[in-house]
Amino acid sequence: MELERAIRLRRSIRHFAARDVSPAVVKRLLDLARRAPSSMNGQPWHFVVVRDPATKRALADIKNRHCPPEKKAFPADFLAHAPVVVVICVDVERSHDRELENGVLAAGHLLLAARARGLGAVYLSAHTAGRPALRSDVKRLLAIPAAVDPVSIVPLGHPARRPAAKALRELRTMIHDERF
Amino acid sequence: MELERAIRLRRSIRHFAARDVSPAVVKRLLDLARRAPSSMNGQPWHFVVVRDPATKRALADIKNRHCPPEKKAFPADFLAHAPVVVVICVDVERSHDRELENGVLAAGHLLLAARARGLGAVYLSAHTAGRPALRSDVKRLLAIPAAVDPVSIVPLGHPARRPAAKALRELRTMIHDERF
Repeated sequence: MELERAIRLRRSIRHFAARDVSPAVVKRLLDLARRAPSSMNGQPWHFVVVRDPATKRALADIKNRHCPPEKKAFPADFLAHAPVVVVICVDVERSHDRELENGVLAAGHLLLAARARGLGAVYLSAHTAGRPALRSDVKRLLAIPAAVDPVSIVPLGHPARRPAAKALRELRTMIHDERF
Repeated sequence: MELERAIRLRRSIRHFAARDVSPAVVKRLLDLARRAPSSMNGQPWHFVVVRDPATKRALADIKNRHCPPEKKAFPADFLAHAPVVVVICVDVERSHDRELENGVLAAGHLLLAARARGLGAVYLSAHTAGRPALRSDVKRLLAIPAAVDPVSIVPLGHPARRPAAKALRELRTMIHDERF
């Protein structure tokens, strides 16, 4: 699929059909994720690919437990219904003080690559600044070593339905010439 | 251009030809950047589009001044030679505690959209965790209001040359089934 079309059609998908995504497709998507830029070309990524129902349920429970009050309208239970959940992590030493950026750039590639293949996905954070409990619970669940940090959680699957186009804020209010 | 091809061909470009990028093309790229996902669909982005040579030089000087010792091999002087520099910012209130993620996801779109159009770009950070001076210098230079934070700096231009494909770390060392 054309890049511009993938960007225009991508939506956050939280409802998945009961249809698998093959290991070969997941591998292909992760090959594209790890082609993101990274600080000092450290390529610090690790991807934990979760298919076990109990682990997906546990990830949903962890996200719900650490959900801030203002986001309670978006429970993470749908993680348990995605055929595959990818937890994107970074090796801290290879990240050159840019753990979050490195992880998020790979996640962005994954979201677009999924859309280009007709799959759905959504970006979830695996950490909260100043509140380390979310990250440490994810690390414990997935046996992630001390020197590696989870950054984001991306479920992948076939969308149960395609949401309508979203209303966009006006571009001209976002663009500033020379100064803000 | 196909999404997969854009991802595979994208490289960080720091040398630009003396050829302009039209305002219409920049607008088209920013239209794609603002289609990134954002926390609670806040769409918090602001884009400061810098073409003034003195301002580009000042951005390069700020980046160089705050460059950590281990990254001194990558001075930011090339910012002064790009026809356009986009400073990606986020409205803090619209970011729902996800300033950095929201900004980086838009930056990732911008990098890929530039590549799909044959342009070059590179991701630079506009902030450093725990060291607010970089961000505050950028804010002062561009008259960015208190409630808006710069996240990244992305020069755009026609590449002076195309770097060779980069060596990638082995994918199989990055993928972990079920647990790390």
